Amino acid sequence: MWRNSLSAALLLVAIIPISIQAQSSAKPDKREGRIAANVRAVLEAQRDAWNRGDVEGYMDGYARSPDTVFVSGDNVSRGWQTVLDRYKKNYNSREKMGTLTFSDLEITPVGSDAAIVLGRWHLKRANDEPHGRFTLILRRTKQGWRIVHDHTSSA
Amino acid sequence: MWRNSLSAALLLVAIIPISIQAQSSAKPDKREGRIAANVRAVLEAQRDAWNRGDVEGYMDGYARSPDTVFVSGDNVSRGWQTVLDRYKKNYNSREKMGTLTFSDLEITPVGSDAAIVLGRWHLKRANDEPHGRFTLILRRTKQGWRIVHDHTSSA
Repeated sequence: MWRNSLSAALLLVAIIPISIQAQSSAKPDKREGRIAANVRAVLEAQRDAWNRGDVEGYMDGYARSPDTVFVSGDNVSRGWQTVLDRYKKNYNSREKMGTLTFSDLEITPVGSDAAIVLGRWHLKRANDEPHGRFTLILRRTKQGWRIVHDHTSSA
Repeated sequence: MWRNSLSAALLLVAIIPISIQAQSSAKPDKREGRIAANVRAVLEAQRDAWNRGDVEGYMDGYARSPDTVFVSGDNVSRGWQTVLDRYKKNYNSREKMGTLTFSDLEITPVGSDAAIVLGRWHLKRANDEPHGRFTLILRRTKQGWRIVHDHTSSA
């Protein structure tokens, strides 16, 4: 009786690491698919907000933190509020905002709480069509997936 | 006797998850410092290789994979070999290579197997001094920490 219980207990000891391993190696596809869907939804919400002239809604995709980083050219801007203020100043009309599209999104989860996005951006306006690429890093926050680092370059 | 062994075995079952948790939650600062040191060493080795005219040595910092991604402006290049070939063609003399420096490196580990680097690059040459920023994503590989994604922009 004790012998059987001991065997059962030892079996349990042997099984636990296997099941932990199975958990972390068997479900990544499903988990990664879920992360990619959540991240894509954040970008689609940003695009939709931009295209209805809602700069604050667009900025919802970014983490509301002084550490959120925006890189372009040789410039680094820091902080959600800083960038919101700049967007509001530089894009103070629907004409200047134009119509934003994202395409060729490649979403790569990194672990369960981070993801990298490579994509194209294109702004269609009456007089010009600026476009380029972006690399985004998103983290899972209490508010959902949010961009913490945005490196954008243009043609 | 069996009873003691059983207790010991059950104790083991109880201890395993606790020690796993302690390992992953108690040491992040030390672990992050180690990751940052390893990542910094990769970039320093790249800079040193570049500055002795060793393009292949510079490329050692990148993962030797067809998936390694290089983004700049509106362009995306893929694959270690593709980029090595381009570097060898575009930087075929010490004069064109100039002297490379990296500065303002901010290294952020993401979990235990990935890290993000934000930094400045500066190339000092006889006739110009191109410079800008980069966002790198490194992964821990069998060969050590390697860049898998490089988004570079210039002034």
